[in-house]
Amino acid sequence: MSAEVSVVPVVVDTANSPYASLKPVPINAVRLADRFWEPRRRINRDITIPLQYRHLEETGRIDNMRRASGKKSIPFEGIHFNDSDVHKWLEAAAWAFATDPSPDLARLIDQAALEIADMQQPNGYLHSYFVFEKEAERWTNTRFMHELYVAGHFIQAAVAHYRSTGETKLLQVAERLAGHIIDTFGPAEEGKRAEADGHPEIEMALVELYRATGETRYLDQAKFFVDVRQGMGRMNRAEYELKPFREYDRVIGHAVCAVYLTSGVTDVLAETGDPTLRTALERIWDNMVFKQLYVTGGIGSRWDNEAFGRDYELPSERAYTETCAAIGSVMWNHRMLALEGDARFADLLEHTLYNAVLPGLSLDGQSYFYQNPLADDGTHRREEWFGCACCPPNVARLLAQLPGYFYSTGPDSVYVNLYAEGSAEIQLPEEGQTVRLTTRTQYPWDGDIEVEVKSGGDFGIFLRIPAWCEEGASLEVAGERFGKALMPGSYAEIRREWQAGDKVRLRLPMPARRLEAHPYSVDTSGRVALMRGPLLYCVEKVDNPGFDLRDLVLGDEADFTGSFEPELLNGVVILQGRASVVPPDLGWQHRLYRQKTAAPAPAPHTVNLTAVPYYAWANRDPGQMLVWLRSK
Amino acid sequence: MSAEVSVVPVVVDTANSPYASLKPVPINAVRLADRFWEPRRRINRDITIPLQYRHLEETGRIDNMRRASGKKSIPFEGIHFNDSDVHKWLEAAAWAFATDPSPDLARLIDQAALEIADMQQPNGYLHSYFVFEKEAERWTNTRFMHELYVAGHFIQAAVAHYRSTGETKLLQVAERLAGHIIDTFGPAEEGKRAEADGHPEIEMALVELYRATGETRYLDQAKFFVDVRQGMGRMNRAEYELKPFREYDRVIGHAVCAVYLTSGVTDVLAETGDPTLRTALERIWDNMVFKQLYVTGGIGSRWDNEAFGRDYELPSERAYTETCAAIGSVMWNHRMLALEGDARFADLLEHTLYNAVLPGLSLDGQSYFYQNPLADDGTHRREEWFGCACCPPNVARLLAQLPGYFYSTGPDSVYVNLYAEGSAEIQLPEEGQTVRLTTRTQYPWDGDIEVEVKSGGDFGIFLRIPAWCEEGASLEVAGERFGKALMPGSYAEIRREWQAGDKVRLRLPMPARRLEAHPYSVDTSGRVALMRGPLLYCVEKVDNPGFDLRDLVLGDEADFTGSFEPELLNGVVILQGRASVVPPDLGWQHRLYRQKTAAPAPAPHTVNLTAVPYYAWANRDPGQMLVWLRSK
Repeated sequence: MSAEVSVVPVVVDTANSPYASLKPVPINAVRLADRFWEPRRRINRDITIPLQYRHLEETGRIDNMRRASGKKSIPFEGIHFNDSDVHKWLEAAAWAFATDPSPDLARLIDQAALEIADMQQPNGYLHSYFVFEKEAERWTNTRFMHELYVAGHFIQAAVAHYRSTGETKLLQVAERLAGHIIDTFGPAEEGKRAEADGHPEIEMALVELYRATGETRYLDQAKFFVDVRQGMGRMNRAEYELKPFREYDRVIGHAVCAVYLTSGVTDVLAETGDPTLRTALERIWDNMVFKQLYVTGGIGSRWDNEAFGRDYELPSERAYTETCAAIGSVMWNHRMLALEGDARFADLLEHTLYNAVLPGLSLDGQSYFYQNPLADDGTHRREEWFGCACCPPNVARLLAQLPGYFYSTGPDSVYVNLYAEGSAEIQLPEEGQTVRLTTRTQYPWDGDIEVEVKSGGDFGIFLRIPAWCEEGASLEVAGERFGKALMPGSYAEIRREWQAGDKVRLRLPMPARRLEAHPYSVDTSGRVALMRGPLLYCVEKVDNPGFDLRDLVLGDEADFTGSFEPELLNGVVILQGRASVVPPDLGWQHRLYRQKTAAPAPAPHTVNLTAVPYYAWANRDPGQMLVWLRSK
Repeated sequence: MSAEVSVVPVVVDTANSPYASLKPVPINAVRLADRFWEPRRRINRDITIPLQYRHLEETGRIDNMRRASGKKSIPFEGIHFNDSDVHKWLEAAAWAFATDPSPDLARLIDQAALEIADMQQPNGYLHSYFVFEKEAERWTNTRFMHELYVAGHFIQAAVAHYRSTGETKLLQVAERLAGHIIDTFGPAEEGKRAEADGHPEIEMALVELYRATGETRYLDQAKFFVDVRQGMGRMNRAEYELKPFREYDRVIGHAVCAVYLTSGVTDVLAETGDPTLRTALERIWDNMVFKQLYVTGGIGSRWDNEAFGRDYELPSERAYTETCAAIGSVMWNHRMLALEGDARFADLLEHTLYNAVLPGLSLDGQSYFYQNPLADDGTHRREEWFGCACCPPNVARLLAQLPGYFYSTGPDSVYVNLYAEGSAEIQLPEEGQTVRLTTRTQYPWDGDIEVEVKSGGDFGIFLRIPAWCEEGASLEVAGERFGKALMPGSYAEIRREWQAGDKVRLRLPMPARRLEAHPYSVDTSGRVALMRGPLLYCVEKVDNPGFDLRDLVLGDEADFTGSFEPELLNGVVILQGRASVVPPDLGWQHRLYRQKTAAPAPAPHTVNLTAVPYYAWANRDPGQMLVWLRSK
């Protein structure tokens, strides 16, 4: 262990990354006390994480490890990469422990850590599937067997465990595993396997292991895996042209693979500054965000290969939009934000959190969506677990990490990326100065945000002016109107000699907004989606029982007003307004196509329409759901 | 062989089926002499069929059979059901031989027949994959290995070979195979396997074998397979509820499986009259046609599992619409037409032939589409062959069978189902009366059709008034206006004492028509498709190079006129008219979504638009293609 590495629970530790613009704030330096995120994080700690551990036990995932370490003589159960679910769970538990330590959680963490560590082979190998009769197959099918993906998730868990507990035992296991990987993968001329894993993940893990230990060979190995790769992962299809990462100008193929890869590349870039990686990342980000992003922030439209489609291929009802892909996008944008310090990454991070990650989890924290459609007939429901259970522990670790996303630090300054009631105690990197902030707000339900500086000093506060707030944002600093224009989609820099008790007051108006999509997006043609503040809305049958949602047409003049309903869906602002319903057209009986005539459509009648936040859908009686509403 | 079975080349022989309304006309009783189909059939005989045989040889498909019969000691090559491609090819060749015998074709047929027959096992089993080390696996995985599917294609080929050549050798091979299947599959209480194949096909084959031999046990076995089945085939997904055929009220799952199954059930129904099968078939047909049919006639929208989607799930660019599924729909509608004598089945058969089957084949007869999208960016191109090569020989056998679809007979009457220049000599079933007809028309390019009765007599002619001709159809019989109203989508019955030389003249106006789709079909919202006569049109970039097809908007008033271009695409009527092009909206740069405003869109400019028949797309320089055009 090199002396200058500090043991604090930071997620993606760019504190010493030479090419990162922003540095991280440890997750235990931020205390959320809001009514939106913190209750979810409490459910995550108290219900989701213990329940997931039970699933891991009951589905044989931990028994597979006991089998591998010789403690149990049983057949391997489930999918060959199931260890990764245990690793991701352990990472979630470690981050949860960092902010809210408890003896029960510590006991579960110790148990899982023990079962994992005990199955390590003498040469460092660690994967319960490839033991005994399967030992000879280790590393022989990196394209499909995901051994490096599983290893990466373990290494990330070990780093989280080390940073959250200060204990080095799992980190040592991870270093032995990483050493074995370095011995196995490398240039062909060294007699090593010159190939990358079908599922990216190891790249991120090795950079974080480098950051935790200071050992540059882990960084070098991550660079090797980036350089040697052809394709973006899991591209087992003739339709994809496989080429080195630097040559891509778009996201392609399996969505989770793609954003796990771009996350790892961003990690490498933060350490190396390689301009060719930066150029490729920016091109790829532009393509994803301007051509392949759902209005939810979700990505990966195709069921076939869980993949990105062509540009503008964004079907609503048949959207795949895996929960893990949205989480991968959060991971990537979190890293891009640290790299560039540009608010557009924080904008997308926030939007994706609320509207693409959160829908993946039920309000009770006990069931999950794998796919997240934007329209449904009422049959798509969350499930308690999956045979391929990647999404549940991924959601848990993201919620556990969440406080680490709220703030960053730059030169003599604090960046406020996300808004929620709570407080933070933030160490500025250069001078050891500590900034204490308290935030009061009902965000995301209300756009009034008050940040109180509890400790004086000369530093900057960068407040994010969300891109969604296109009009009317205003800012007061210590009772005075902020002098500069506020640009949506940027950080407002407030630099002054702060007095303890100084208050910053940001007002972000939250009228209901009507979005339209690019005309090349065929599925959303002639339709609008409703948003309010950072939240996307949808219409559910249970609130609108009197008509078929497909017959709904919004007029341009319709006005939607928000009102907080404390009893509904754990407390949400609903949107209400008037809309038209087109009655069934008898001309369509027993027809799917007909000659277009100028004959007027049947006269619509007016109805009251209620919309709820999309993240909360499918938590009540099953029924139709629709995000994109027909519009006049 | 029972004496009353006649050896004539009929496709789906309902001549003695007690519950069929119509009886078939042998394919060699019809001579097409038109400029549309007959040149395609000539290419099929002279180029496609010989070239496909070469592919069968070069890809090891026939060598697999030589291996199974001990002639070659080589490894099995390709997919386990590859024999079926040889069988389908043989069926195609046999039907081609029936209308156009040639020594070269006879030689190829004999060669293939020999290689197939020689690999039959002593117990009747016939499948090149399951020999030697795989023998023990025979019939152990009917859900996925498709042995009965392969067997069914062989039996169909053997029946075609028998009916086309009069030779019984292959038919005897088929009977031995069918006997082995009967010994193996049946009620569990008889110690047999009580299960159906994952891929339907054997049902049709056994009914035709029954019709060719008079052996009722083949029909009984087909009934058994219909009764024992759960699901519609290949439903290897949790998302499908598996249940007996009679309980379905919709098409579901793998599209080819579904329509092969309904075809086989229709065959069983024609023999048994089981009313529960009829009810199910009618419900399923209604669902397919009114909720799940592309405007091309294509079916099966999902790439995932090559399956039907939900109702109205009909994406254009991401349409799967396998060529084989369209062929399966033709097979089913051909059988339903024979069963019910209802013109709606002939309407769909014609529409599917022109607009969903034909696009699967290049104009030169040498390359094929597996998937048939309704919009493309220019990257989807036909291929010369496939690893899974189901489509190419399926197209070949359909073209070879085609004359058999043009006419049927009913009590004392001839049904004219399809229109093309040519002649026919049709035996009426009851009295042995022979009707000779000559048709003169430029159909499908022109709707003037003259049918001359060459031999007098007292019989009815049922002329199909196509459903597409909603207005203006007129009919003259022997120079006099037909007395009854013509109903589009029905047969006009003309019954009289015919004199040789009597002429029937049907006029079907062919203005360009603008179709709209049901409002629940999200992908076609605000769009129109162009048709003329029975043909669907599309717009290709190569004819419209000056703009992005996605920027095209058709006004309601735009008038399209057709003109025949003899040099273009082997001679087609193109549609030309004026349309608008919306210039790129700068407000969409670097945006995928934006707040909807009332601001006017940039002013469009007017362009000349050229549309070509959809079947002919992708035969010139690659570029964008679009069926559904934005409409004001």
